[in-house]
Amino acid sequence: MLRSHTCGELRITDLNQDVTLCGWVQKSRDLGGLTFVDLRDRYGITQLTFNMEENAELCEQARELGREYVIQIKGKVIERSSKNKNIPTGEIEVEVKEIKVLNASKTPPFTIEDETDGGEELRMKYRYLDLRRKPVQDKILLRSKLAIAVRNNLSQADFIEVETPYLIKSTPEGARDFVVPSRMHEGQFYALPQSPQTFKQLLMVSGYDKYFQIVKCFRDEDLRADRQPEFTQIDCEMTFVEQEDVLQQFEGLMKSLFQEIKGVDLPNFPRMSYADAMKHYGSDKPDLRFDMKFHELNHLAQGKGFKVFDEAELVVGICAKGCATYSRKQLDKLTAFVKTPQVGAKGLVYVKLNEDGSIKSSIDKFYSAEQLQEWADEMGAEKGDLLLIISGDKNHSRNAMSVLRLQMGEELGLRPKDQFAPLWVVDFPLLEKDEETGNFHAMHHPFTSPKTEDLDKIETAPEEVRANAYDMVINGVELGGGSIRISERKMQEKMLSLLGFSEEEARAQFGFLMDAFEYGTPPHGGIAFGFDRMCALFGGTESIRDYIAFPKNNAGRDVMIDAPSIIDGEQLDELHLAVKES
Amino acid sequence: MLRSHTCGELRITDLNQDVTLCGWVQKSRDLGGLTFVDLRDRYGITQLTFNMEENAELCEQARELGREYVIQIKGKVIERSSKNKNIPTGEIEVEVKEIKVLNASKTPPFTIEDETDGGEELRMKYRYLDLRRKPVQDKILLRSKLAIAVRNNLSQADFIEVETPYLIKSTPEGARDFVVPSRMHEGQFYALPQSPQTFKQLLMVSGYDKYFQIVKCFRDEDLRADRQPEFTQIDCEMTFVEQEDVLQQFEGLMKSLFQEIKGVDLPNFPRMSYADAMKHYGSDKPDLRFDMKFHELNHLAQGKGFKVFDEAELVVGICAKGCATYSRKQLDKLTAFVKTPQVGAKGLVYVKLNEDGSIKSSIDKFYSAEQLQEWADEMGAEKGDLLLIISGDKNHSRNAMSVLRLQMGEELGLRPKDQFAPLWVVDFPLLEKDEETGNFHAMHHPFTSPKTEDLDKIETAPEEVRANAYDMVINGVELGGGSIRISERKMQEKMLSLLGFSEEEARAQFGFLMDAFEYGTPPHGGIAFGFDRMCALFGGTESIRDYIAFPKNNAGRDVMIDAPSIIDGEQLDELHLAVKES
Repeated sequence: MLRSHTCGELRITDLNQDVTLCGWVQKSRDLGGLTFVDLRDRYGITQLTFNMEENAELCEQARELGREYVIQIKGKVIERSSKNKNIPTGEIEVEVKEIKVLNASKTPPFTIEDETDGGEELRMKYRYLDLRRKPVQDKILLRSKLAIAVRNNLSQADFIEVETPYLIKSTPEGARDFVVPSRMHEGQFYALPQSPQTFKQLLMVSGYDKYFQIVKCFRDEDLRADRQPEFTQIDCEMTFVEQEDVLQQFEGLMKSLFQEIKGVDLPNFPRMSYADAMKHYGSDKPDLRFDMKFHELNHLAQGKGFKVFDEAELVVGICAKGCATYSRKQLDKLTAFVKTPQVGAKGLVYVKLNEDGSIKSSIDKFYSAEQLQEWADEMGAEKGDLLLIISGDKNHSRNAMSVLRLQMGEELGLRPKDQFAPLWVVDFPLLEKDEETGNFHAMHHPFTSPKTEDLDKIETAPEEVRANAYDMVINGVELGGGSIRISERKMQEKMLSLLGFSEEEARAQFGFLMDAFEYGTPPHGGIAFGFDRMCALFGGTESIRDYIAFPKNNAGRDVMIDAPSIIDGEQLDELHLAVKES
Repeated sequence: MLRSHTCGELRITDLNQDVTLCGWVQKSRDLGGLTFVDLRDRYGITQLTFNMEENAELCEQARELGREYVIQIKGKVIERSSKNKNIPTGEIEVEVKEIKVLNASKTPPFTIEDETDGGEELRMKYRYLDLRRKPVQDKILLRSKLAIAVRNNLSQADFIEVETPYLIKSTPEGARDFVVPSRMHEGQFYALPQSPQTFKQLLMVSGYDKYFQIVKCFRDEDLRADRQPEFTQIDCEMTFVEQEDVLQQFEGLMKSLFQEIKGVDLPNFPRMSYADAMKHYGSDKPDLRFDMKFHELNHLAQGKGFKVFDEAELVVGICAKGCATYSRKQLDKLTAFVKTPQVGAKGLVYVKLNEDGSIKSSIDKFYSAEQLQEWADEMGAEKGDLLLIISGDKNHSRNAMSVLRLQMGEELGLRPKDQFAPLWVVDFPLLEKDEETGNFHAMHHPFTSPKTEDLDKIETAPEEVRANAYDMVINGVELGGGSIRISERKMQEKMLSLLGFSEEEARAQFGFLMDAFEYGTPPHGGIAFGFDRMCALFGGTESIRDYIAFPKNNAGRDVMIDAPSIIDGEQLDELHLAVKES
């Protein structure tokens, strides 16, 4: 070992020990007679001292050290005269006797500090330097800690981790598959998995009972901010279970992760139907750190001569507690906000319930104070509160109001990072209708089972059929989702046919799974968590990219290694491929 | 939960309990008045009884159950009249009160028993059924257990698991890269990693200190038996270490895995130089469960008029203890064996040291008994032993003798499965010369550092330079290999130039790594283990394929899902690709 201790290890109890440390030069300060160097590694920072009087040559050497030089020093642990209580090693320093430069460093293109002067692009290009910064390192360490905690928790519950293949079959359903040309099989391709879904189901057919895997998945989507073409899932499946068993198991997992990693005791997770979530929060992943429920006002607001409301499918409001004092400017800003394309509302109506009992609204022309008071009563609003109302077609209004609700929660400080409101959203619809084509898509995926009690509607009103599907939501973040699966061939065939698969297509794509269903398939179900997102939730920041050691940028490029890139013609020939100019 | 207990759980202490079990019908026996059903799940087998007198209808139902039906039963635990001591549940049975068929099963295409009647191809196609068989299940469970043990061991030693990217850059060095066409970047490709080598080195540059990852890697090789296009590595790297530190760390890992998983205490691992391994065992991964060292006989065998030996670069022999009694037929068989193309020797010379003191050899014409006795003395052979001698050019003779040595070890029962002989092979050559082209290849990989004491030969005699490289070998199986890496730009440039990279090629491929070396790169090194092979060693069988849940066949195909397969023209268009007929 080139070191006897790490840079985070020495304490006042180690006084007078001879030690050897290795690390990076964080900074050095030359105080004339004394030179101080902060030596850094993954474990912390230790202060080194060099004394001009005692060893001028060594002190000179120390003065030459640049930032990020890698050095090895031998020295003795001594007590600091001015102690630093902010770091664990702050009571000691090491009086250096020998120094060896293990490797020099050019001046880094940005400062390796908690707050850096490097822009996003630059830090991506030199990701290996950005990874040295403590806030980034903390995130990577958190991820590692979370992964091992998940594995131990599930292993102790008799789950086994099974690796499923990465080179699988492309499915037309998965138009966003990344494919891998086969050299040995001309004109044929593997695909990279978007999830191990069918394989984990086959493992249930095989009797493996409780499976999990922390696994990379791939999706070739047009990237939006904070989407990555490769992402990590905690993929889980269980046999001989009903929905409630799965919810209990993974609620337990999440509680113990919060306890172990964050020292937080989560409450029992409430359950909310998809229908209620949409009605009360306009979202299938409501942030329940704060209430501010939706109130539907059609019966009060319509038929009073205000055309905008009269023609609306839905008039929906929220009550912002204590916001009657909002200024004109603040209200204008909110109105502008809801009208942005991302929110998409046509406008915003407000009703101020002033402290003095007066009521002021943007629609005073159409409604009397008494009428508006009725609204306030309906919404449980009191003096000092502000009602915010959006109208239009149901889906768009709910969606816009959901965004506004989150914004108001933010403004009112109702979404603290250290508070956690978990939730199971259940009873999702089995299918969703494509608004353009009128075709049905699987809301979760084609292997999700419909609720038995809704089966009679599957021919007549498929969009009303609910699924045995569920999402785990914490603080408005969908951490994971799953379902009880179909385990009979007939039902699977019916489902694929509803989704527009011909018999041939169904057989070509999922024949192996449907065949498997005929050889004693047990009832089974599971869940998959987005691990990147889970890390971000635990880490208390928004961007998942920060929790990935080597992420791609928004164009799917790794700018550090410069990938993707062209490959040479010989390799293309071997793959029986030609690049077409478009 | 659809069950109160698993099928491996009930004991005599559970008598009279009401239980609900789920599982697969392993077999049923109809004894007239009584029907017995063996119910199976991952945890074991429980015997169910149905009594014709007590419930004729239920008994009839039980008789209809086919093999591999999935059922749920409710019943009471009772004592067996004839106990089965071979299984943990053998003292009890469950008297069934209710039965529910959860799913039927067609007759499986092969028997789901420890010994099956299904051929390889059929079992691959129905892998989900093969995975139900206990010997297969045991292997998958062992793999899961090993993985979690590795993770816990390394985590406890402060290693962190970091996920490195799967969509990386193709390197010409890696002609056997699988590539992934980019839809968004026309004509460009990602590559799937053959190993996370450069990324783990960058993590060391970033200060992560102790890294590991259990990770899929990909190599598009012409498949040999028991090679898989995707395979799993335990990839590890450490900072501020020298070779000895890495050996100690991972010797410790392996010892604790053997202790935990197999209850076996491994001895300290001996170290053997590559040169010695080749000289004494003709292999860089000698099986040390038995001795049977090589003895070079040139000085005794040459110059006595036997042309074959006189013209040979090497005359090398082994002593097979107690084999002087080998018959003519046995010796002919050995001779035929060494002459097969896989072994490649021109012939085999034997010398029998008979118990009566006489010496009999296939070269009696050329050597006197006294001369042959000298050979025997040189080789430490005694009466009753058999000397086997091969000659020819050095490399081929050693290689052939190595295969013969293993064969003799096998025949003599010297390679028991429950005995483990670990070894570190060290001091590998840095480079190997391509016999055809005369070009140098990196013996380990281009990032391996040369030994400081051999640096002066790097220009003049590069093939003599030894590397800081090492392999862990157990029972003749190379479990893992690694090296101390180059951490200076200049040395890395020199190495790439030795390997025939032009400056431009070096920069295009590894520029990011060499740039990184200029920003304070610490000394670092590591190792990577073949996890599939490690599982096979722990499981005591040869084929790695058995330890992979969903393996590919020798043509790289997954015959169960039928991949690779063609993709449609639209998808090719999106990828800017055309398939060329060849």
